Amino acid sequence: MNYAFVNGTLCKSDEAVIGIQDMALQRAYGMFDYFKIMAAQPIFLEDHLDRFWNSARQLRLSVPVSRAQLTDQVFELIERNQWTDAGLRLTLTAGYAPDGYSIHTPNLLMNGQPVELPSVISAKGLRLISYQHIRQLPEIKSIDYLMAVWLQDKIKAAGADEVLYHQQGFISECPRANVFLITGQGVLVTPAAGALPGITRKKILELAATRMPVEIRPVHLDEFKTAREAFISSTTKIVHPIFAVDGQLIGEGRTGMFSQTLFDAYLQLLPV
Amino acid sequence: MNYAFVNGTLCKSDEAVIGIQDMALQRAYGMFDYFKIMAAQPIFLEDHLDRFWNSARQLRLSVPVSRAQLTDQVFELIERNQWTDAGLRLTLTAGYAPDGYSIHTPNLLMNGQPVELPSVISAKGLRLISYQHIRQLPEIKSIDYLMAVWLQDKIKAAGADEVLYHQQGFISECPRANVFLITGQGVLVTPAAGALPGITRKKILELAATRMPVEIRPVHLDEFKTAREAFISSTTKIVHPIFAVDGQLIGEGRTGMFSQTLFDAYLQLLPV
Repeated sequence: MNYAFVNGTLCKSDEAVIGIQDMALQRAYGMFDYFKIMAAQPIFLEDHLDRFWNSARQLRLSVPVSRAQLTDQVFELIERNQWTDAGLRLTLTAGYAPDGYSIHTPNLLMNGQPVELPSVISAKGLRLISYQHIRQLPEIKSIDYLMAVWLQDKIKAAGADEVLYHQQGFISECPRANVFLITGQGVLVTPAAGALPGITRKKILELAATRMPVEIRPVHLDEFKTAREAFISSTTKIVHPIFAVDGQLIGEGRTGMFSQTLFDAYLQLLPV
Repeated sequence: MNYAFVNGTLCKSDEAVIGIQDMALQRAYGMFDYFKIMAAQPIFLEDHLDRFWNSARQLRLSVPVSRAQLTDQVFELIERNQWTDAGLRLTLTAGYAPDGYSIHTPNLLMNGQPVELPSVISAKGLRLISYQHIRQLPEIKSIDYLMAVWLQDKIKAAGADEVLYHQQGFISECPRANVFLITGQGVLVTPAAGALPGITRKKILELAATRMPVEIRPVHLDEFKTAREAFISSTTKIVHPIFAVDGQLIGEGRTGMFSQTLFDAYLQLLPV
């Protein structure tokens, strides 16, 4: 049996419901955060809660519990579900607005399921297609994935795995991951704007700081496609190499040394 | 007591719920349509169902009932709720995706509440502020109103009523309404692209066809602000004059003759 929290009430996951008047369902006004559980412990919880509260503040949603209460619920859910390796999602919506259009008292949801992290870097690199799009309010982890889900058909039709968003050629992010490149000179580069501030991205930048030069700046697709290496970062994929964009191989189209180094270094941050 | 349908099951509105795993709540992947009930009859139902099925097709959601079945449910809901004047909302989501990210078996929701239409054109015109934004997939009536709801603070701070979206100066729509202007020469103009194909907009264009020249083409903010008259159209507001944009009066900042004519003509289409 899997359990969830709905506004602080524990319930079975398949009985966890929300009223159809909720503003996330009616107007897509909602946000979330997502983090891993390993060895029954939440990973980088403080970073995720920082971002969760920041998203809420920017969307003007008041979190209905204190950070301590939310943390308690996280640990209770881990225990109830007897999770060792799992992913936990916190969702916050604008609630049941009487006018169906304004921010109201938020609904807070907490649910998750077992998930395993890769223990070695993927040998199968990603093939991306580029697409001109930018998420609304891209620095907020909103629930806005309409375009991402809608694009899945185009991605499949192109024989690719994921989409890379850009604006007039300047890349920002993948729908659920940050992107990085390694230049011919061995510099790690990641876009400066238009992307979610990923927690894994943050850790990678910290890990890179003592290992290689780092630049956070605008990155054009042309530069990206001619990089020495490229990879995405995300909570579940950690560091996953990108082998091609729009059918064009990146570097030699195989996992590179820098990607490998950062993946390995990241693993050292996790519980054994 | 107010009733709703959830996947064809009648329930009390305040007990109408959906699982928290639904793709609309998790990924904002959902759409809807909304129409009026007057004298216990749905208004322009066929137009709304055409658009509903078109939105579903474009989002690759398969409507889980036939058009005849959906129509039956509409009439049953009207009867159960004993509605005379109401607004009814049909919502379709991408359902409970096992991976939390892909299109699955849709959930179909139907709910509404009493609402009155204006019987005379509003004497209080709207003040708009312009904002550079375009809805994702703007010709689909998706649930994507994140930006619209988020902008409410900016609208209030500017002492305005609503926002007018534009792209590089070319206007498209308001978040819940189409926009029109009347030129100095008495031509009705409405933007050609980037806007939802409104049912009220469609009726107005039909009504205008025998009364004035009509142009459907790109409209720049500068032209809009120097129009003779301007108004929005929507299901609930019918024709509502715009008096100012970004603090600049449109025409004489009062309800114009063309707006009045089209409002009156539209009223004639409705049940007495």
